[in-house]
Amino acid sequence: MHTIKVDTASKKYDIIIDQSFEQLAAAIKSTNATYSQIFIISDDQVAGIYGEQVQTCLKELTEKVHVCTFPHGESHKNYETINQFYAFLLAHQADRKALIVALGGGVTGDMAGFTAATFMRGIAFIQVPTSLLSQVDSSIGGKTGIDFDGYKNVVGAFYQPELVYINTATLQTLPTQEFNSGMGEVIKHGLIKDTDYFNWLIQEAPNIQALDHESLTHLIRVSCEIKAKVVSEDEKESGSRALLNFGHTAGHAVERLKDFKMLHGECVGVGMIVAAHISYQLGTFSLDELQYVLRIIEVYHLPTEVQGLDIDAVYLELFFDKKTSHSQLNFALLNGIGNSYLEKAKITEDIVKKALSQIL
Amino acid sequence: MHTIKVDTASKKYDIIIDQSFEQLAAAIKSTNATYSQIFIISDDQVAGIYGEQVQTCLKELTEKVHVCTFPHGESHKNYETINQFYAFLLAHQADRKALIVALGGGVTGDMAGFTAATFMRGIAFIQVPTSLLSQVDSSIGGKTGIDFDGYKNVVGAFYQPELVYINTATLQTLPTQEFNSGMGEVIKHGLIKDTDYFNWLIQEAPNIQALDHESLTHLIRVSCEIKAKVVSEDEKESGSRALLNFGHTAGHAVERLKDFKMLHGECVGVGMIVAAHISYQLGTFSLDELQYVLRIIEVYHLPTEVQGLDIDAVYLELFFDKKTSHSQLNFALLNGIGNSYLEKAKITEDIVKKALSQIL
Repeated sequence: MHTIKVDTASKKYDIIIDQSFEQLAAAIKSTNATYSQIFIISDDQVAGIYGEQVQTCLKELTEKVHVCTFPHGESHKNYETINQFYAFLLAHQADRKALIVALGGGVTGDMAGFTAATFMRGIAFIQVPTSLLSQVDSSIGGKTGIDFDGYKNVVGAFYQPELVYINTATLQTLPTQEFNSGMGEVIKHGLIKDTDYFNWLIQEAPNIQALDHESLTHLIRVSCEIKAKVVSEDEKESGSRALLNFGHTAGHAVERLKDFKMLHGECVGVGMIVAAHISYQLGTFSLDELQYVLRIIEVYHLPTEVQGLDIDAVYLELFFDKKTSHSQLNFALLNGIGNSYLEKAKITEDIVKKALSQIL
Repeated sequence: MHTIKVDTASKKYDIIIDQSFEQLAAAIKSTNATYSQIFIISDDQVAGIYGEQVQTCLKELTEKVHVCTFPHGESHKNYETINQFYAFLLAHQADRKALIVALGGGVTGDMAGFTAATFMRGIAFIQVPTSLLSQVDSSIGGKTGIDFDGYKNVVGAFYQPELVYINTATLQTLPTQEFNSGMGEVIKHGLIKDTDYFNWLIQEAPNIQALDHESLTHLIRVSCEIKAKVVSEDEKESGSRALLNFGHTAGHAVERLKDFKMLHGECVGVGMIVAAHISYQLGTFSLDELQYVLRIIEVYHLPTEVQGLDIDAVYLELFFDKKTSHSQLNFALLNGIGNSYLEKAKITEDIVKKALSQIL
């Protein structure tokens, strides 16, 4: 078992990395709070595999452990689903001492977290991420939210969990395409913060893809450490946390224009190519380094191109990102592999469109 | 102009009490932030009276000042209205540097605040309360929210404004019944925290009801100071802030059972009678003091009885309040006038029902 500390302005909490759910109840107990009831929020797929097991584990804490499920998929990440959660909580007479457990991937964590953030002005919640993407990225740092009217995560809150509990064994049941999607965020961590980690990810690819236990544990640990450090320094993204948006500016635009039919990490993958190419045009990233980025994306079976989108349409869509302010594009860029910075002044339409042409 | 400081764990801000909107733009400027656009959220009634005037004042700050209106009344305090606000913001390409101005009463402040709390995970907002209830109570302290499925404020967030700007002149256009409703919260402030203020409210009643400028300014100032002090000490209601719920436990139950057709302050009025009577039964409040409470409620033309509700139904409804935890009723009670405390252990069904019989 590994423990990583997250220390944000609003809350301190642990990320626990383990190989089963056996220590979950003990980990919750160690947060020193007692809960009146526990509500596991999970999609139908994950609940079908792990729902009963987690429910049984949590009954060590209270008899009142409920499972509230919703249909899987990003298309359900909206206020209709959230309203169903509120109704479920109210039907079970949940009070302010209730605990929400988010069991699942990023969609589940974002929605369960937003429910916890807004039910009775905030109740406690715990992240139990079961996908690679949520384990290394979305479960850490307190970003919660839902989509609205085609805008990804445009409604939400910063709201930290009491605990993140990662059972790496859940990756064994994760569909390969979703595992690869998670690798999009993992690659990002190496690119923006850690050259050695990036190189290790290339060398270790066969073991990682074979879901070798030790390789996966190391990967999750390093990625969680990178993410935890960034969000501890800048909880609400007023500065350095925006580096984590590397690959996301163009990635989100593609994701929206493809109507959320491409996986998030796949979109981040092509978004990273765009950002890397902008860095190259600005002279802070070499052609060789650009080739490394393309190579690692291919190694992890992520797309390097997107079909059926128009450059002008993607360019326009960039301005609808919620990170855009005063109609000025912001990009996280690279100063070599493992080193990132934020740039807006030098981002011209011509540069962006040239970069977009690499993936379209 | 008077300035009162609010200093919560998450934010420090000023309450400004003035007699016009003239200094509003200057007050916003003094928060030292610049905003890309300003969105005034207001109901149709208040917007009809003050919308244009406030919009003109705010154009000193930016040309992009929009007014977003909704139909007045508690029945619109729901996610459908919030979704219309989100859509309005998105249609105007609002970004994270947008500012929301809540212009109106409690419903407007709660909803505009919740919109600010959740749009793009939180943008800045300012309270410009125009009703007595919102000026002395709901605009201060960062409670935001909406009703859901008949449950008042069950969805919401703690989210502090950048500024509260009170123009006391707006009380001149407030319907008398709503003014009286606001007095429910004002009376509460005296009862829970300040004997002298309570006595002054009785003596000064004729001037207050004549909307005498000096009396109103003193009233708003003292009530704001009491509220600001309590929420500064306990932003998220983990302890002493619950004293502000005096009169609200039974008040909320009545409000729900009357389907929100009684005004909030009217419900708090009868709720205060219930809480005072429980205090009397527990020996911490005298019969004389109980008479004072009834007297001041009558002086301000608030109801002392509710028609058509059943004691058992109201009793059961108490358990659906979001302050209830572990199925244990909590009451803020009085230890004499001007002195309050929290009690749950001694609250028996018999005591509560006897108290409820005073108003039913």
